[in-house]
Amino acid sequence: MRVADLDTPALLVDLDIMERNLRRAAEYAARHGLRLRPHTKTHKIPALGRRQLELGAAGLTVAKVGEAEVMLCAGGKDLLLAYPVVGARKLERLIKVARRTRLTVALDSLAVARPLSAAARAAGVEIGVLAEMDVGLGRVGVSPGQELAGLARELQRLPGLVFEGIAFYPGHIKRLDEDGRQALRRVAVAAKVRGVALRRVGIEPRCVWGGSTPTLFESHTVPGVNEIRPGTYIFNDRNTVLSGACAWEDCAVTILTTVVSTARSGQVIIDGGSKTFSSDRLVHPEENGFGRVVDAPEAVFWNMNEEHGFVRVDRCRKTFRVGDRIRIIPNHVCVAVNLHERIYGIRGDFVEEVWTVDGRGKLQ
Amino acid sequence: MRVADLDTPALLVDLDIMERNLRRAAEYAARHGLRLRPHTKTHKIPALGRRQLELGAAGLTVAKVGEAEVMLCAGGKDLLLAYPVVGARKLERLIKVARRTRLTVALDSLAVARPLSAAARAAGVEIGVLAEMDVGLGRVGVSPGQELAGLARELQRLPGLVFEGIAFYPGHIKRLDEDGRQALRRVAVAAKVRGVALRRVGIEPRCVWGGSTPTLFESHTVPGVNEIRPGTYIFNDRNTVLSGACAWEDCAVTILTTVVSTARSGQVIIDGGSKTFSSDRLVHPEENGFGRVVDAPEAVFWNMNEEHGFVRVDRCRKTFRVGDRIRIIPNHVCVAVNLHERIYGIRGDFVEEVWTVDGRGKLQ
Repeated sequence: MRVADLDTPALLVDLDIMERNLRRAAEYAARHGLRLRPHTKTHKIPALGRRQLELGAAGLTVAKVGEAEVMLCAGGKDLLLAYPVVGARKLERLIKVARRTRLTVALDSLAVARPLSAAARAAGVEIGVLAEMDVGLGRVGVSPGQELAGLARELQRLPGLVFEGIAFYPGHIKRLDEDGRQALRRVAVAAKVRGVALRRVGIEPRCVWGGSTPTLFESHTVPGVNEIRPGTYIFNDRNTVLSGACAWEDCAVTILTTVVSTARSGQVIIDGGSKTFSSDRLVHPEENGFGRVVDAPEAVFWNMNEEHGFVRVDRCRKTFRVGDRIRIIPNHVCVAVNLHERIYGIRGDFVEEVWTVDGRGKLQ
Repeated sequence: MRVADLDTPALLVDLDIMERNLRRAAEYAARHGLRLRPHTKTHKIPALGRRQLELGAAGLTVAKVGEAEVMLCAGGKDLLLAYPVVGARKLERLIKVARRTRLTVALDSLAVARPLSAAARAAGVEIGVLAEMDVGLGRVGVSPGQELAGLARELQRLPGLVFEGIAFYPGHIKRLDEDGRQALRRVAVAAKVRGVALRRVGIEPRCVWGGSTPTLFESHTVPGVNEIRPGTYIFNDRNTVLSGACAWEDCAVTILTTVVSTARSGQVIIDGGSKTFSSDRLVHPEENGFGRVVDAPEAVFWNMNEEHGFVRVDRCRKTFRVGDRIRIIPNHVCVAVNLHERIYGIRGDFVEEVWTVDGRGKLQ
């Protein structure tokens, strides 16, 4: 099948770019002695998880129990659920996952750890745990000093659980400019505080997890980190380019759309909006718009409704007519993929792969 | 099953409120002699389309060919596809839909109408068409005077197509305050311009379509309108309340979430973010946040990542612990429903219906 034969909107993955992105991260990790455990929430496709494992990933990361169930099909034997699992129904399903793979869960409280411990113990399985520390995002995670040491010590005592180490997520660093580098230095300081506090109570963690695509290639500068779990790097997106972590040529995903109306002068309407791209704004507040038009970067994708994209084309040399196809790099590829039933792997003009997004909508 | 037995995040529909919303719109339409043709993009569930038809809807509205295919199961015999259909593959599928139901398509150009005419003629089916006019949103639609009259005249001549009338969408009116009422008066002026221009070329349209939930109950004030196609009114959401078209008690949908972390003082993290609610901001720029916490309206759902909701609770009298459940009215219910595989119809503490969102992700 040719790309020209695909109906729109369709999410395309350039297979050569994806492969290059995967290899680049794998080589970086190998060079610095880091274990790579890609976060599969970006693609939610077992075949792509399998490819990441083939290229040397130490295991895979997921965000939800439902994603873990899907990612078992990738064939890996080592899953990290980087999310606090709460509730009896989820624990029941989690135990089934833990019977089939080595499983580690990141959490930040005994309120989450105790029921997990009880469930693991009752089922006779062992589940690894990571203590999550906050390094500046203010989301989950305890503070890196005494609070972390206290949590780690308690986790070591809980039956059914194996204390594996520390997780953190520097998701507050959106760009590696001067501010970003300063924030990264503060992360390094937090890592040192963590080291001191843990040694004081006699704990030497086996794993220290960092990772996030914008800071991916700086992971080796944070003391003690030995595993990373970036997600977006497989595809990259407009946010990643603006973060400074890659170039436009490294964006593997484009969304193919069709012009359906040119009624308003200087503007075209395309057949994709918030149900195709998601309404995620850029994380860089000084930039705007909902995507980059690949063949006409001077076009401005300035507004969207559910099924309509508003693209200003008054500065484009090219003229657009109804039926013309426009390819767009989305702001945030993880939420865009999650809106598509299938996505298409292409090489040049040809469609070589059709993947079902098996993890789509696995919210629980 | 009880609501307490549901895992989270889960999208709940209060069946009594939904029923009241449906009846209120049906009664309004009947009182003013308007035909009601609900836009099913909000729920994407054939069973709910069927309920709308039972309550007197003249037919259903969809946004995509894929949604039309799904909504055939609602059993109606009259579909409006309120979207320009472009491309041979879509036309092929559209013809199949047209063989099974009366079908009308809204469009704004001959570039869309001519291939539709050719496809209908070749297949020996008749497809209704509406000429779309722009009344201020600046999305699709020609201007209401000569341009509209010219398009309508051409549409009347195309074989295979039956010219049905005029469609417009006052989606730029977000609130019925003084500005909104002024904008509505301009829509009424546009409607008069439309009437004069069409009569001048001897056209008396059978249908004139308006509709949009914020202006729903003002539809009778726009001259000539005899059909309306609101979508959101079945559930309502935070945008609808802030538009002035309904009260909080009329919001049928809440998203049930669980607190998974309280690590940061004054804040809780819930197990739903942009993949559960969508990242749609409010259409009212002076308000912010991503939803209203039902039992603690003073809580502020101020930020989200893909699977994390950040809720500030420092002004709440209530204290929140890990495992507590929080119900939230989303900003925009149409994009939220589209993220869920299943949604749950509840009465009080009991789950009475489980619906698969069959139209979810039908982007083409």
